[in-house]
Amino acid sequence: MILMNRPRAEHVLDAAGLDGLLATSLENVYYLTHVWVESQVGLPRQAQFYAAVARARLAAPAIACGINEMGNVLANAPAEAAIVPYGKFYRFVEPGAKLGELERRIKEWVIDGLAKSRSGPTAALAEALDGLGLARGRVGYDERGLLTEEVRTEVQRLLPGLRLVPAWATFRQIRAVKTPVEIQRMRAVLELNERSIMAAMSLAKPGVTEHEMVAEYERTVVTAGGRPSITQIFFGGHGSTGYVGGRNATLTAGEVIRFDTACYLDGYSSDIARNFSLGPPAAGPRVQRYYDAVVAGEEAAIAAMRPGVPASEVFRAGIAGTRKAGIPHYDRSHIGHGAGLEIYDIPLLGPNDHTPLEAGMTFQVELPYYELGFPGLQIEDTVLVGEHGSQILGQLDRSFRVVHH
Amino acid sequence: MILMNRPRAEHVLDAAGLDGLLATSLENVYYLTHVWVESQVGLPRQAQFYAAVARARLAAPAIACGINEMGNVLANAPAEAAIVPYGKFYRFVEPGAKLGELERRIKEWVIDGLAKSRSGPTAALAEALDGLGLARGRVGYDERGLLTEEVRTEVQRLLPGLRLVPAWATFRQIRAVKTPVEIQRMRAVLELNERSIMAAMSLAKPGVTEHEMVAEYERTVVTAGGRPSITQIFFGGHGSTGYVGGRNATLTAGEVIRFDTACYLDGYSSDIARNFSLGPPAAGPRVQRYYDAVVAGEEAAIAAMRPGVPASEVFRAGIAGTRKAGIPHYDRSHIGHGAGLEIYDIPLLGPNDHTPLEAGMTFQVELPYYELGFPGLQIEDTVLVGEHGSQILGQLDRSFRVVHH
Repeated sequence: MILMNRPRAEHVLDAAGLDGLLATSLENVYYLTHVWVESQVGLPRQAQFYAAVARARLAAPAIACGINEMGNVLANAPAEAAIVPYGKFYRFVEPGAKLGELERRIKEWVIDGLAKSRSGPTAALAEALDGLGLARGRVGYDERGLLTEEVRTEVQRLLPGLRLVPAWATFRQIRAVKTPVEIQRMRAVLELNERSIMAAMSLAKPGVTEHEMVAEYERTVVTAGGRPSITQIFFGGHGSTGYVGGRNATLTAGEVIRFDTACYLDGYSSDIARNFSLGPPAAGPRVQRYYDAVVAGEEAAIAAMRPGVPASEVFRAGIAGTRKAGIPHYDRSHIGHGAGLEIYDIPLLGPNDHTPLEAGMTFQVELPYYELGFPGLQIEDTVLVGEHGSQILGQLDRSFRVVHH
Repeated sequence: MILMNRPRAEHVLDAAGLDGLLATSLENVYYLTHVWVESQVGLPRQAQFYAAVARARLAAPAIACGINEMGNVLANAPAEAAIVPYGKFYRFVEPGAKLGELERRIKEWVIDGLAKSRSGPTAALAEALDGLGLARGRVGYDERGLLTEEVRTEVQRLLPGLRLVPAWATFRQIRAVKTPVEIQRMRAVLELNERSIMAAMSLAKPGVTEHEMVAEYERTVVTAGGRPSITQIFFGGHGSTGYVGGRNATLTAGEVIRFDTACYLDGYSSDIARNFSLGPPAAGPRVQRYYDAVVAGEEAAIAAMRPGVPASEVFRAGIAGTRKAGIPHYDRSHIGHGAGLEIYDIPLLGPNDHTPLEAGMTFQVELPYYELGFPGLQIEDTVLVGEHGSQILGQLDRSFRVVHH
């Protein structure tokens, strides 16, 4: 399977004058190959795994990887992929051992073919690029991933006609418009995020700690095979100071709970926010009034989200909507961001991002309100831009909810 | 609190001819400041948070960060830290609001002092370095963290006398020898890892899936406030192919379970491995014999771990010990690695790393055996090098354990 939006990739590459792409990061390798490199999760500054594609054949990536990764690559890369392993890794086999199909293929590459493994990442990467016909090409790489100066310089020496240019932003530009499979993934991780928030809320009673609710949220995520990322569950005024570490606050009657939780499932991220109150808010009716105002602002923003509308215009609609609905002094640096393989993707719904929205873009639209000494308030939802308008993908009740125990 | 080993830092900086250090990554910022930047966890390629120290005053870091991070910084940075925030962030306050001490300080910086926030990361970083007296210094930065080309070039323009040099390896060299506080943290995360393995093992009965055991392991980790990283729990032959995704295998009687699990707690990592079998191994007595051989090799390696002994000699002892104890064809690229803020730290217990061991170094010593069509076997333990020898820090039974259900 290929996650990549190929027509969009062709279009963006042509506009950027690129003959190909080189992925060096977890998310972009996954985007080009559907290989999830666990070692990049655990060793983000050390695991060198490269995937490249040529503009002319986007569905046939070339992979340069440590030979220890061969099982993962053989099991998950598209059949059209060219694989160039490097290094040595000791797997053994007994003569006459009964092997399954995958084991047989691993044996061919890692035991019988070990002598063909390239000496190191540089040789493998140069060969992978050459094999794609990119030895004289202009190739964009994600410079915020892992391509060390040493490997880059040496690959340039081996392929003097190659021009490597920074293209982290280009990858993000391609990824901004989702394919149907990606939208399905976004829905699935969103559903998990919603479910995990409600699982945490099932503990909401006097005396529960922030940490206990965080743990219940994260237990629900990992039970489904997901990965927690930033789990913000704050009681009362904690919700207005930002993360400060420590999660020992205990819940009391009348306190407001702010969720802003991000997690991953099958590579894709979800990041949404809600407020609840344990009984009527002790901070008074302003809580509900202000919450309703940010929800009104969110709705104004979403109503403005149509193909062709600049992100900055959506921003203005959201700010104006919140001010008009009851927080006259409301302001923000942005009211949301693209969403996908990274928690913050492009475009940014901010005053200076004039990118026109396109059908198939997914956003996290978020309007928080942080007042010191007052409960932190926030609404955040996943929004899919369609041909004729936009829709919230989630099912979670968006009203301010007073719960009783 | 400062985690840094200051005498060692002074020594390493002098040897490298550096006047100071600039941290741009989650782990190194934490090492210099004890500020845990959640946004670097969630947005590793986007969250620009810098910490710097001068050789002359290692306990007084300077921090350049987005002003949205001020709560976290004020709550956790040492009192001696100089803070230079950048950007705009909207927090509000009502006149006369009753504020706690932290809220009051946030108000001073983020509301009353907003006009003083620097225009962006470049201006803030240049000022932080200048304030440390490093404007004409030679400063090492961790080039595998996040310091964009743009920011680096611009800081160099603002401080023409500054020499920024790559020092990712230098940070690791300093971090290789642990302080007592760090060893305490290593013990705590190890204890959690051991407990989580046993929690997963409590599910081991016919019909349980790999995923169910992974989930139980990870639930235990997050319940304690930890973070799972790479949770490898494989049944039978899966344990010899490496990670291939999918975890749907179901456990059957006689099958061997291989654990190799890495997690984090309070910034520090643990990475250990064990084998169990559900009833006597169906693959025969060779399983136990080979397992005992890798344990014997591990013990030979640990016996060799004394201050002054080169890492490569420990490697040779481990390989020789395993061969002698019953796997004559045994071989590996390495048999362990330093451990700390990253899962793989230095030194590497491999044939080409001749770094002499020092008291206070912590290692994960690991001897896996991967034979296709045969259960994956592995022992891995956390070892602390002491003045006169080394000790395994963990409590988990190291023998091959046959469990019954």
